[in-house]
Amino acid sequence: MAKISSISSLGEFGFIDEISKNYAGAPLPLGWLGIGDDCAVIPKDTENSWLITTDMLLGSVHFLPDLIPPRSLGYKSLAVSLSDIAAMGGTARAAFLSLAMPKNTDDTWAREFMQGFSDLAAAENVSLLGGDTTASKNDICINVAMMGEAPNMSIKLRSSAHAGDIVVVSRPLGASAAGFNMILNQKLENSAAIRAHHEPVAETRLGAWLGAQNDVHAMMDISDGLLQDLSHILRASSAGARLDITGALIHPAASLEQALSGGEDYALLFTVAPDAFAKLVSNAKKELGRDLIAIGTLTPDAGEYDVFHHGKRVKITKLGFDHFA
Amino acid sequence: MAKISSISSLGEFGFIDEISKNYAGAPLPLGWLGIGDDCAVIPKDTENSWLITTDMLLGSVHFLPDLIPPRSLGYKSLAVSLSDIAAMGGTARAAFLSLAMPKNTDDTWAREFMQGFSDLAAAENVSLLGGDTTASKNDICINVAMMGEAPNMSIKLRSSAHAGDIVVVSRPLGASAAGFNMILNQKLENSAAIRAHHEPVAETRLGAWLGAQNDVHAMMDISDGLLQDLSHILRASSAGARLDITGALIHPAASLEQALSGGEDYALLFTVAPDAFAKLVSNAKKELGRDLIAIGTLTPDAGEYDVFHHGKRVKITKLGFDHFA
Repeated sequence: MAKISSISSLGEFGFIDEISKNYAGAPLPLGWLGIGDDCAVIPKDTENSWLITTDMLLGSVHFLPDLIPPRSLGYKSLAVSLSDIAAMGGTARAAFLSLAMPKNTDDTWAREFMQGFSDLAAAENVSLLGGDTTASKNDICINVAMMGEAPNMSIKLRSSAHAGDIVVVSRPLGASAAGFNMILNQKLENSAAIRAHHEPVAETRLGAWLGAQNDVHAMMDISDGLLQDLSHILRASSAGARLDITGALIHPAASLEQALSGGEDYALLFTVAPDAFAKLVSNAKKELGRDLIAIGTLTPDAGEYDVFHHGKRVKITKLGFDHFA
Repeated sequence: MAKISSISSLGEFGFIDEISKNYAGAPLPLGWLGIGDDCAVIPKDTENSWLITTDMLLGSVHFLPDLIPPRSLGYKSLAVSLSDIAAMGGTARAAFLSLAMPKNTDDTWAREFMQGFSDLAAAENVSLLGGDTTASKNDICINVAMMGEAPNMSIKLRSSAHAGDIVVVSRPLGASAAGFNMILNQKLENSAAIRAHHEPVAETRLGAWLGAQNDVHAMMDISDGLLQDLSHILRASSAGARLDITGALIHPAASLEQALSGGEDYALLFTVAPDAFAKLVSNAKKELGRDLIAIGTLTPDAGEYDVFHHGKRVKITKLGFDHFA
C-alpha cells in the first residue's frame, strides 16, 4: 500500500513531472508543444504559432495582500505572463484574467487592481478578452492565461542549448528578493528594489528581438531563481554549467545569494553560440541600447553545476523556490 | 469622494460590466470577440475560429473540499470549461490547469484529482498543454483555461436571439442543486442528483451539433441558474421572455425553484426560429437520440420576464447565483 504523504514531500517540480508523464494525454499533433517550457505552442499558420501560458498568484504565498498596493498587484499579475511569452521569443496579444477575492474586499481595491492590470495591458497592446470573477473564502487568488504569437523560426525552447554555449542574463539579478526583504522588514531603503518586486518589468521587446536571432539557442525567464531556472535548461538540454559570477550580475541592492536564488527577477536567461556572442552583444547595444551579462558556459557534464564568484567556488545550498517546500 | 464599499455591494455582474467598459482595452481586430459570451473568439483561418474560456473554482465557494471526492472535483473542473466551449457551438482541443492547494494536502488527493481531470480529457480528446501548480495558504483554488474551435458559421452568441424565438433547454434542470442539498444534509437519497452535482455532464456533442444548425440563434450554458443565465441573453438581444414551465423542465429530484434558479446545471439554453423548431426537435431525436425541452418564447419587451408554472404566474424572488452576494 502506498504511503500517504503530503504534496510538499512530492514537491512542485515532482508533481509537474508526474502530471506531464501520467495525465497530459495522447501525443500531440505536429507542431504542438505541451508541458515543459514557459509556454505551450499551437500552430497558427504555416509561418507562425500561438504561444499560451497560464500563471496563478496566491495571497500570502506569492504576495502579501497588506503590503502590496493593489495597482502594483494588477500590474505584476500581467507582467509575469508577459515575461513567459517574451521568454519563448514571442509577442503577447490577449489576456484572460480570473480574480477571486473575499466578499468584504473594498471595491476600491478591485478597481485599483484592474487599473494596474489594464495600464500595463494598454502599454503592451494586449487585449483583455475574458476571464472570471468570483468570491473566495480566505485567499486572494489570481490567474492570468495569455496568448501571444511568434514566427516559428523565433520560438526558443529550454531543450535547444548546446555544450559550449555562453550563458547570458539580460540584467542584474536579486533586486526583487532584496526589495521583498525590505518590505517585510519595513526598511524601504531602496525604491528601485521595491519597485522591482512590486512591478517587475517583463522583457517584452528584448524577448522578441532575441527570438529573431538564430544564434540564441535556449531561452527562459527567471522566475524561481537563476540556479533553479538554469537547472531546467540543463536538464532539458542534457548539459552542465560552469558559472563565473562577477559584480555585473548582482543588483546593487542584492546579495550574491539573492542574485543566484532569490527569484521573481523576470529577467531573461538564454544561451548563445560562442562564436556569435560578440556580435550579439554589439547588436543588442546598437539596436536596443541593452547590455547583456555573460555568466558562464555550458559543459557536456549533464546536470553538473560549478559556480564561482570572483574565482572562488560557491557552495550551492538552495537552487531557488519550490512553492510546496 | 467616492464612498468605500465592498465588492459584494457592486456584485459579480456589476464588476464584470465595469471591467468590460473600463479595463478591456482598445477595440478588437475584425473577427475577434472579447468579454460578454461564454468564450472569447480569435480567428483561426478564413473558415474557423478559436474559442477561449477560463473558469475559476474555489474551495468553500464552488465546492466543499471535505464533501467532494477529488476525482469528481478533477472531472468537474474540466467539465465546466467543456460546457463553455459547447455553448458557443465549438469543440474543445486544449486545456491549461492551474491548481493551488495547501501544503499539507495529501499527494493521493492531488493524484486522484488529476485522474478525474485526465479521464474526462481523454474521453473528450482534449490535451493538457500546460498550467501552474502552487501552494495556497488556505483555499484550494483551481483555474482551467481552455481552447476549442468552431467553424465561423457555427458560433452562437448571446446577442443573436430574436423576438418570437422558441426558448429551449437541453435537459431537465435542478438536479445539481438538489444533489448539493442532499450532500449538505447528508441525505444521499438520489444518486443521479448527487452525480449531477459532482460530475456534471457537459453537452459537448449536442453543442457542436446545435452550432451547425442555422436556425439556432443564441446559445449559452446554464451555470448560474436558468433565470439568471436567460437574463443575459435577454439583455444582450434586447428581448423579453414568456416562460411556461411544465414538469418536463424539472428534474425528478428537484423543486421548481431549484430548476429555475439552482445553478450548476451545465445544460444548454438556446433560442430557435419558431418555424424551424419542429424539424430541429425531430433531427435531434433522430441524429443524437436527444429530447429538447421548449420552455417559452422571446418577446419584444426588452428585459421583461413572465414566468408561468402550469399556467400559474411564478413570483421571481431570485434569478440565480451572484458569487459576491
